[in-house]
Amino acid sequence: MLDKVETEDLKDLMADMGRRARAAGQVLGLAPTEQKNAALREMAKAVRASATDILTGNARDIEAMKANGQTAAFLDRGTLDISRIEAIAQALEAIVELPDPVGGVLAAWDRPNGLKIERVRTPLGIIGVIYESRPNVTADAGALCLKAGNAVILRGGSDTINSNRALHAALRQGLKAAGLPEDAIQVVPVTDRAAVGEMLQGLNGNLDVIVPRGGKSLVARVQADARVPVFAHLEGLVHIYVDKAADVEKAAAIVVNSKLRRTGICGALETLLVNREVAQSHLPAILKALQDAGCEVRGDATVQAIGEGIVAATEEDWRTEYLDKILAVKVVADQAEAMAHIAEYGSGHTDCILTEDAKAAALFLATVDSAIVLHNASTQFADGGEFGMGAEIGIATGRMHARGPVGVEQLTSFKYQVRGEGQTRS
Amino acid sequence: MLDKVETEDLKDLMADMGRRARAAGQVLGLAPTEQKNAALREMAKAVRASATDILTGNARDIEAMKANGQTAAFLDRGTLDISRIEAIAQALEAIVELPDPVGGVLAAWDRPNGLKIERVRTPLGIIGVIYESRPNVTADAGALCLKAGNAVILRGGSDTINSNRALHAALRQGLKAAGLPEDAIQVVPVTDRAAVGEMLQGLNGNLDVIVPRGGKSLVARVQADARVPVFAHLEGLVHIYVDKAADVEKAAAIVVNSKLRRTGICGALETLLVNREVAQSHLPAILKALQDAGCEVRGDATVQAIGEGIVAATEEDWRTEYLDKILAVKVVADQAEAMAHIAEYGSGHTDCILTEDAKAAALFLATVDSAIVLHNASTQFADGGEFGMGAEIGIATGRMHARGPVGVEQLTSFKYQVRGEGQTRS
Repeated sequence: MLDKVETEDLKDLMADMGRRARAAGQVLGLAPTEQKNAALREMAKAVRASATDILTGNARDIEAMKANGQTAAFLDRGTLDISRIEAIAQALEAIVELPDPVGGVLAAWDRPNGLKIERVRTPLGIIGVIYESRPNVTADAGALCLKAGNAVILRGGSDTINSNRALHAALRQGLKAAGLPEDAIQVVPVTDRAAVGEMLQGLNGNLDVIVPRGGKSLVARVQADARVPVFAHLEGLVHIYVDKAADVEKAAAIVVNSKLRRTGICGALETLLVNREVAQSHLPAILKALQDAGCEVRGDATVQAIGEGIVAATEEDWRTEYLDKILAVKVVADQAEAMAHIAEYGSGHTDCILTEDAKAAALFLATVDSAIVLHNASTQFADGGEFGMGAEIGIATGRMHARGPVGVEQLTSFKYQVRGEGQTRS
Repeated sequence: MLDKVETEDLKDLMADMGRRARAAGQVLGLAPTEQKNAALREMAKAVRASATDILTGNARDIEAMKANGQTAAFLDRGTLDISRIEAIAQALEAIVELPDPVGGVLAAWDRPNGLKIERVRTPLGIIGVIYESRPNVTADAGALCLKAGNAVILRGGSDTINSNRALHAALRQGLKAAGLPEDAIQVVPVTDRAAVGEMLQGLNGNLDVIVPRGGKSLVARVQADARVPVFAHLEGLVHIYVDKAADVEKAAAIVVNSKLRRTGICGALETLLVNREVAQSHLPAILKALQDAGCEVRGDATVQAIGEGIVAATEEDWRTEYLDKILAVKVVADQAEAMAHIAEYGSGHTDCILTEDAKAAALFLATVDSAIVLHNASTQFADGGEFGMGAEIGIATGRMHARGPVGVEQLTSFKYQVRGEGQTRS
């Protein structure tokens, strides 16, 4: 329970966590599904039984956060109560229901010489999760990694260190009760920021991927400095393009839902692009629906001429992920201009076309280089749960390994299993 | 045709190559299969038509290599003649026959709300290939990347720069003839080593993955310094474990083939582990077969007692990828010791069990954490062509994205295409 340690001690501590994670991962990678599920159930039980300890730890964190003058929103994210603890336990139980990806056969084929080749899912290895002050991530991320057979090293925000420690104690109880190594889920026990630096360096090969969960500055730092692969998105600068063949009623409903259902999530709409041919016919209804729902609209000159009370959009607006009740709106000459705008300003997260023209939709879905491309549906569906993938550890915009929602399947690798009957190569 | 440029000029040159690759990649990613195949056929045609230019360039390279006192093996790898040029052209044509991975649907499912979700293959982006003095890699790697819709930046060994330039001119002709951007395949035009450094830094986000092709020191440098993902293997320290239930005749044949068919490839056997229970019964035949074929054997005390003319193996032998007619042989107490030895000394490339016991085989294939695990077959099958994957750009031992042979499918990413009919999220 150290809050500050010497540099060399910290290096040793982190290196040791990496080694213990690798050893635990080797056991975990071979653990049968039922044993992992038993651990998840035992973890849920232990979380419920430890509610008092968890709330006590959380109370200490809240006190410190208040003393540090944190915002109300920050405090809310960091606060636990009995119903949030129950939600954490239920989330653990929900992961029991997900299919175990490990051992799944991704492809199988026979060769003319009789060799039987299978591409089989394996755990990815050791996952590092660096997150800000949401204690539930401790349980959610730990459980998701466990289900995929991975060991995990969790480094939560220092503001919730006591909550995380108490939750972690419950997770360890669950692992122990199911006969799995307690080191399968480790929490960095110090708040020293240098621990993050050690993780970014890869713990001497004992960290295979890092998942940052938090604000843009955290993700940017991890992406810039990590020497190991990162599953993340920097931001969700999400576009909808209203094509000339868009249905106006669908468009208004989808735009309002995409922007306003929840403004703070990465799949929330940030920029609306409207084909000039339907600006007069479609924009009034869309703008009215947005403004009636309390959304500020910032538009180019054409949008300002069509609507009322529209703030003039600047170059900066096309680059801004508001995460708020504000929408930037631009009229474009055609679909090509819309796609060029998305290529220049988009973040490769989620983009959408609204059209009744199947060809225009197909061109958009093929061309726009984003993890998720939608046709005639709300961008708020950009979510592992909505995709039917179960819980997700985040959404990735990189092109390597995992792209889009990162669920239990994306936390796996694979190997080739080749079975012969004595074949030699000529 | 610069051989040495100022640092700032080099930075600009490489950054510009990256930008041009991204622009070319955007066109290439949408190019229909037939257009890419037409380019490959035109490239083959142009290579044949440019044979004189290519041989002239190669003659200059050979002269310089001789002046630099390169070894005969090095010279052989770098030398082209008319039959090797024809082989390069035929390899280009062979890639026409591979299925186009781009646009392939990896998974498709419907959600209860009617959303139709597809995971669709896309190009990976921009591939950087850093290789030593084998001019054929210029064409092979360029073509494989092209087929998967990727732009490629090739940095060949300075010893074959003139051969590579002449080959590259032919590839560009083929691209142009098919109406594809010539920047789809670029060759770094300078021999300055700092160009590699720029590639390792990622060309400002315009390089998505690096594939090193060459000796261990090249791969080690790329793995240590690259700020972008790397598809590679450092070495193939390949093991065969002869289980107590192994068939002796199969064992002798597979061991000899695995070691000696070609000793210089990464799938060649380097260490043989033999279960103590069958050391007396199986080892004499295996050792005789190896020695009759001219293989030096280095063994532990038990092996030395069983065979004749066995050199004593040292700790260093268990760590050595000989790539030569030498084999290290160790007797182990049981399968667990064999798997522990592989976990400690192996390189995660290819490992094999010989046994008639299905349970022992299943345990080995599940437990050993290597890209390729084999049962009762020669380790020399560790090859994309032998797997039926067509040409490969290399074999990767990392756990991220591509593992095992890296063929045209492994050079792709994916996106989610989601089709709705007006759905909003509640």
